[in-house]
Amino acid sequence: MALPPDATLADAGEFGLIAEITKLFEQGEHVLVGPGDDAAVLRVKTGHVVVSTDLMVEGRHFRRDWATAADVGHRAAAQNLSDVNAMGGRATSLTVGLAAPADLPVQWALDFARGFADECAKVGASVVGGDLTRASEVVIAVTVIGACTEAPVLRSGAAPGDVLAMCGRQGWAAGGLAVLGRGFRSPRVLVEAYRRPEPPYDAGLAAAQAGATAMIDISDGLVADAGHIAEGSAVGIDVHSAAFDVAEPLHAVGAATGADPLSFVLGGGDDHALLATFPDVGSVPEGWAVVGSVTEPGTDGPRVTVDGAPYDGPSGWVHF
Amino acid sequence: MALPPDATLADAGEFGLIAEITKLFEQGEHVLVGPGDDAAVLRVKTGHVVVSTDLMVEGRHFRRDWATAADVGHRAAAQNLSDVNAMGGRATSLTVGLAAPADLPVQWALDFARGFADECAKVGASVVGGDLTRASEVVIAVTVIGACTEAPVLRSGAAPGDVLAMCGRQGWAAGGLAVLGRGFRSPRVLVEAYRRPEPPYDAGLAAAQAGATAMIDISDGLVADAGHIAEGSAVGIDVHSAAFDVAEPLHAVGAATGADPLSFVLGGGDDHALLATFPDVGSVPEGWAVVGSVTEPGTDGPRVTVDGAPYDGPSGWVHF
Repeated sequence: MALPPDATLADAGEFGLIAEITKLFEQGEHVLVGPGDDAAVLRVKTGHVVVSTDLMVEGRHFRRDWATAADVGHRAAAQNLSDVNAMGGRATSLTVGLAAPADLPVQWALDFARGFADECAKVGASVVGGDLTRASEVVIAVTVIGACTEAPVLRSGAAPGDVLAMCGRQGWAAGGLAVLGRGFRSPRVLVEAYRRPEPPYDAGLAAAQAGATAMIDISDGLVADAGHIAEGSAVGIDVHSAAFDVAEPLHAVGAATGADPLSFVLGGGDDHALLATFPDVGSVPEGWAVVGSVTEPGTDGPRVTVDGAPYDGPSGWVHF
Repeated sequence: MALPPDATLADAGEFGLIAEITKLFEQGEHVLVGPGDDAAVLRVKTGHVVVSTDLMVEGRHFRRDWATAADVGHRAAAQNLSDVNAMGGRATSLTVGLAAPADLPVQWALDFARGFADECAKVGASVVGGDLTRASEVVIAVTVIGACTEAPVLRSGAAPGDVLAMCGRQGWAAGGLAVLGRGFRSPRVLVEAYRRPEPPYDAGLAAAQAGATAMIDISDGLVADAGHIAEGSAVGIDVHSAAFDVAEPLHAVGAATGADPLSFVLGGGDDHALLATFPDVGSVPEGWAVVGSVTEPGTDGPRVTVDGAPYDGPSGWVHF
């Protein structure tokens, strides 16, 4: 497709752009038919297939002036790959829908697709299909399909006496977002953590193999997602704030913004760390940190406390 | 959820509305974990899994004043179920993402979800997951997963000498859309065909079993989609216009609007009829009509003709 560097989606046309984008998507051996037919065709072995879907809306889940197109692609993929990770599975195949204004630069769409594919390649997953259409703002719709070799780890299996453990960076992306929201670009390590989260993709399967009783990826915020486990399992959860090694850059952002650095850790949700419960400390795999305990539910139902007290900090992402 | 009848998404909140919507989605026996965890979990037998995804944008793919929320739900599901049909497979599981303005009535979202689920129930498929978020216009993202018991029928298998056949209503939805676009509501049968297409869900598998060499669902328009087969298979296709039994209401709309009634059949794409090629007339299954022939590609590449001549009517849907 010979287009000027500033070409828009309207210049390229749907089919031309789809052809260009599709070239960026390498297909794994399990993909019998990739993009281009009515549907993709995958070879699947008998077992458990996990499926999850997410929407990202410009101005709400990302801003084009806060992250490159490739960053947005990485994040869109990471967020969905992380959902499979949180079941103890491995992602194999993704679809991606892009609704966008006609004046969106073709280069943005191509860079987005490349970032998306690169993130998927980290776990060996293929982008097997998609859709492209016009809309008044950019909306990205991703569906991920994965396989579980172990029994999937749900939110509902935690029991009183279990320990709560976490794997991955937590609070960094929220710190980066706080920085960007104030018009700054540093500490750079936090801004980069927001732009390109690094979920611990090997940790979900390892946790399943180690006997994790419940697991979730932290996308609504640590306390909020601990709440999803508490509710799903009908237990209480106490988070131990002293267990977190709050990174130095978060202290710096806290000092500059007046925020408690711990609030990024307890309320932030864009790092896609994993939170899981295990029967005992001895079964917590390497790379995980024990950050709390599972208790009997309170008399007024399942609840999450921090150091034994209700948590009144930022409580996660509200969509409406 | 006790909400006033005119409650909006903003009143309901994300989690409350998701809980209400999820109640509408019955889960089949193959669904081990339905909506509510990080991912759904499906039991899958060894074989071919087909996956397809589509976006629908308000004002572009549907209008809330032209169709009820339930209609839009039916259409969104039908359009995706049809993609699996066109591979010769059966849909088993769908995810649905809804991005919508905060002032969207809760009732619209619930009616949409009910229509979506009802359409899926026609083929025994379950709605296993979804996402809900705010956007400035309604965007619906659907992914469908299905199983192929026969080898999937691609667009690429047609050979010169094959016959072209079609199954399902064709042109009715385009006629309905033409009527709605002029501010009318009749012929009602066409308007209803646009609002709730009735894809021939049993015909795809039957065609695969009968030895179809290529297949596609008509979503871009009959001539345009015949073109996708021609290109995928590197053949020519000649469509025989006399083979179509143009329905009386289409003649009425043609007379009222000055359009050639045949143009709805050749250019329309919202009925999700199936178009397939078979080795000979004898292998065309019951319920299908022979509507053309597969020829050698022309010297200037694969092309579609109508009655041996280039077709210069409406040529299908252009997204940008």
